[in-house]
Amino acid sequence: MSLRRKGTEQLRKAAGEIFQAALDAVNPRTAVHRHLRRDGEKLLADGEVYDLRERRIYVVGAGKASGVMAAAVEEVLGDRISAGVVVVKDSHGLPLQRIRIHEASHPVPDARGVQAKAAILALLEKTRPEDLVIVLISGGGSALLPAPVAGTDLAEKQVVTRELIRCGATIEEINAVRKHCSRVKGGQLARAVQPASCLTLVLSDVIGDRLDVIASGPTAPDPTTYKDTLEVLRRYGLQDRIPASIRQYLESGAKGEVPETPKPGDICFEKVRHLIVGNNFQALLAGRDRAASLGFQTLLLTAALQGESREVAKTLAALLLEMRRSGHPVPPPACLLLGGETTVTVRGRGKGGRNQELTLAVAAAIAGEEDLVIFSAGTDGTDGPTDAAGAVADGETCPRAKQAGLDPCGALEDNDSYHFFEGLGDLIKTGPTLTNVMDITLLLAG
Amino acid sequence: MSLRRKGTEQLRKAAGEIFQAALDAVNPRTAVHRHLRRDGEKLLADGEVYDLRERRIYVVGAGKASGVMAAAVEEVLGDRISAGVVVVKDSHGLPLQRIRIHEASHPVPDARGVQAKAAILALLEKTRPEDLVIVLISGGGSALLPAPVAGTDLAEKQVVTRELIRCGATIEEINAVRKHCSRVKGGQLARAVQPASCLTLVLSDVIGDRLDVIASGPTAPDPTTYKDTLEVLRRYGLQDRIPASIRQYLESGAKGEVPETPKPGDICFEKVRHLIVGNNFQALLAGRDRAASLGFQTLLLTAALQGESREVAKTLAALLLEMRRSGHPVPPPACLLLGGETTVTVRGRGKGGRNQELTLAVAAAIAGEEDLVIFSAGTDGTDGPTDAAGAVADGETCPRAKQAGLDPCGALEDNDSYHFFEGLGDLIKTGPTLTNVMDITLLLAG
Repeated sequence: MSLRRKGTEQLRKAAGEIFQAALDAVNPRTAVHRHLRRDGEKLLADGEVYDLRERRIYVVGAGKASGVMAAAVEEVLGDRISAGVVVVKDSHGLPLQRIRIHEASHPVPDARGVQAKAAILALLEKTRPEDLVIVLISGGGSALLPAPVAGTDLAEKQVVTRELIRCGATIEEINAVRKHCSRVKGGQLARAVQPASCLTLVLSDVIGDRLDVIASGPTAPDPTTYKDTLEVLRRYGLQDRIPASIRQYLESGAKGEVPETPKPGDICFEKVRHLIVGNNFQALLAGRDRAASLGFQTLLLTAALQGESREVAKTLAALLLEMRRSGHPVPPPACLLLGGETTVTVRGRGKGGRNQELTLAVAAAIAGEEDLVIFSAGTDGTDGPTDAAGAVADGETCPRAKQAGLDPCGALEDNDSYHFFEGLGDLIKTGPTLTNVMDITLLLAG
Repeated sequence: MSLRRKGTEQLRKAAGEIFQAALDAVNPRTAVHRHLRRDGEKLLADGEVYDLRERRIYVVGAGKASGVMAAAVEEVLGDRISAGVVVVKDSHGLPLQRIRIHEASHPVPDARGVQAKAAILALLEKTRPEDLVIVLISGGGSALLPAPVAGTDLAEKQVVTRELIRCGATIEEINAVRKHCSRVKGGQLARAVQPASCLTLVLSDVIGDRLDVIASGPTAPDPTTYKDTLEVLRRYGLQDRIPASIRQYLESGAKGEVPETPKPGDICFEKVRHLIVGNNFQALLAGRDRAASLGFQTLLLTAALQGESREVAKTLAALLLEMRRSGHPVPPPACLLLGGETTVTVRGRGKGGRNQELTLAVAAAIAGEEDLVIFSAGTDGTDGPTDAAGAVADGETCPRAKQAGLDPCGALEDNDSYHFFEGLGDLIKTGPTLTNVMDITLLLAG
């Protein structure tokens, strides 16, 4: 194979195109159509066939992408849909024919979310054994569908989450507690769907696509128990720091006085089927195909990238530098693709996001090198509390920044990647993409 | 290509063999013989030819591997060597015919190192223009060849280094100051070699093989100046925290009262040639070849791995998990190879090293996964202040540890990876390997 060398400008342009191809592959509309098809009186969902005669179809859902997913389901099933309710983030609403759309607050839940949850549960009370409920789940669904358990309220739930985060509990521990403070999370929506069949379409925004984690797994078995939640509270000494109403509820759960979340094998999951319609890996695959068609040697490295952004950056820089130096792991022109979600431990007072900080740290490590580009952005078009999705940089970024009076090390120190890249015109701005499969990072060598 | 799946035990065994092949490739003896060959009255050093007639040959050197390198040079040149002095770390001595070997303290320099340095400089005073000085440099050479400048002593130099490390100066800043407190570092040995020709054989223990960094670059141009060193002291407010003798020396240097270290283009480098006889990349290449011959798909990812060990581990775990899940970047049986040197910021009170901590953090992240193995070790046989070179782990390591009453998270928290792996019998112990090209990390999926 003979491939032409590529200059920095070509690499930056290619990175934008590769990212766009990745986004297109996980557009929720495309993603739903790829898995759901109508053939006369049959609904085909991958291997499964649902006969549409004498079967009523309900659609419910929650998440940032669930509005677009609902529109696609309407395109497939049209007036065969009896009714539906879907909750999306503010300003993510769109006109639908048969499905009612609610907007609610995200990431901090509000009363509108509680109302939408009530509308969904009311709808599901009508289901008969022959009916089909299509559940549309995407990232953010957990906050958009708040359902405090009896005797507690939204504000109290929020105190619990805040305290757990503050004391450094793991995401598994936080989710165990949250599921047991909710009436829909942790598989409990599957109970409400009974006795109907349930087809859950999932756009995954978590590493490993764990069904019990995405939007807190409303139709997936919950391996955790009330006893686990009390153990978590004990571990972090939170028994007296959370509202008494919630502690009492969890304690009565541990005594068997209120029902447990449904466990693996529970009868409520008998007629439940999950389809992952889109995830980070699919986006990476599409990005890889586009990169190959642009003349790059490609490697899809992982869809499970995690860790502190500036530290992950050191490993990514090592990969870029090795391609420049020795042509390993693949010779330029080359494109390495990674996906996942890194983390920023905020120490400074600047403005930025995990993708922007990652890109800044890589830029510092490759300063002065020829024809190396890093591009990193969130697929939902958002990166931290900024209006950018991420940033792009190359070996000339730091020298250019210094000429412009911008200090890469200072910006990194102060978590101020946004203003650094804003000053250079190197922010990536997509606006809301209406999809959400975590982040994509591209490493290009020309 | 049809490759057989491999179980965990096979993977662990293969990792040991791959590491050994990598070590063999950078054995200093092999490495010197690969680059230095005698053909009658000619000495061939890669492209260069040195006529041995009427030319006296001197051999000097310093570093952990320099004793073995000297033995190899004796094997090539035998009694054509007029004289030589080489300094190695305590207990790294070995019998030589023509070259005198000194042992000295490492990593904290001592008076024996100063004596060895004096012996080397005395030897070099005899050189004539037609002579050849072969300089043997390897990691540790800087500490083994201490040469305090006039009016200062070893203890004072050590205060400077300690203060610079304490205040968080970068390695570049530390080296700039150290070179200007020394009579041999930063290219100054090249001045002593004049008017003879100089052939420096280097076994590299630094990322990117920078000649001005390895053993503080005794025969390489020094881009830094006395003014830079004063700027470093000012930046960290160290002017009054370092011995007055050294501060005064640096100030007089900045005024031009004592000679600068030789800069790029200086006449003293005219007859100097450097050969990197071994480095991390060569070790990785040999490891890759062995892995391929064992039936693995292979990728050499980088020889420039850096970063906080437990954070680097997250990216490495992501690579392992992706191979298990999707067969990317290469399908199992697969072996990914990385080299470099990670860092541990010590927070706990345990015992361990960067390779052991990296391995522990990866083990925690892949717990429960089938047929994934991480193997990480220092090529010099040492990892932190322990008698192990590193450690090996797999998906069963953490479950097995818990059964044995060992807590992976606790061990990580307390920087106690040594006792964790000691309890499991999973430390890698090689003893001193007499080579030193940083660390090697292997990721295997069966």
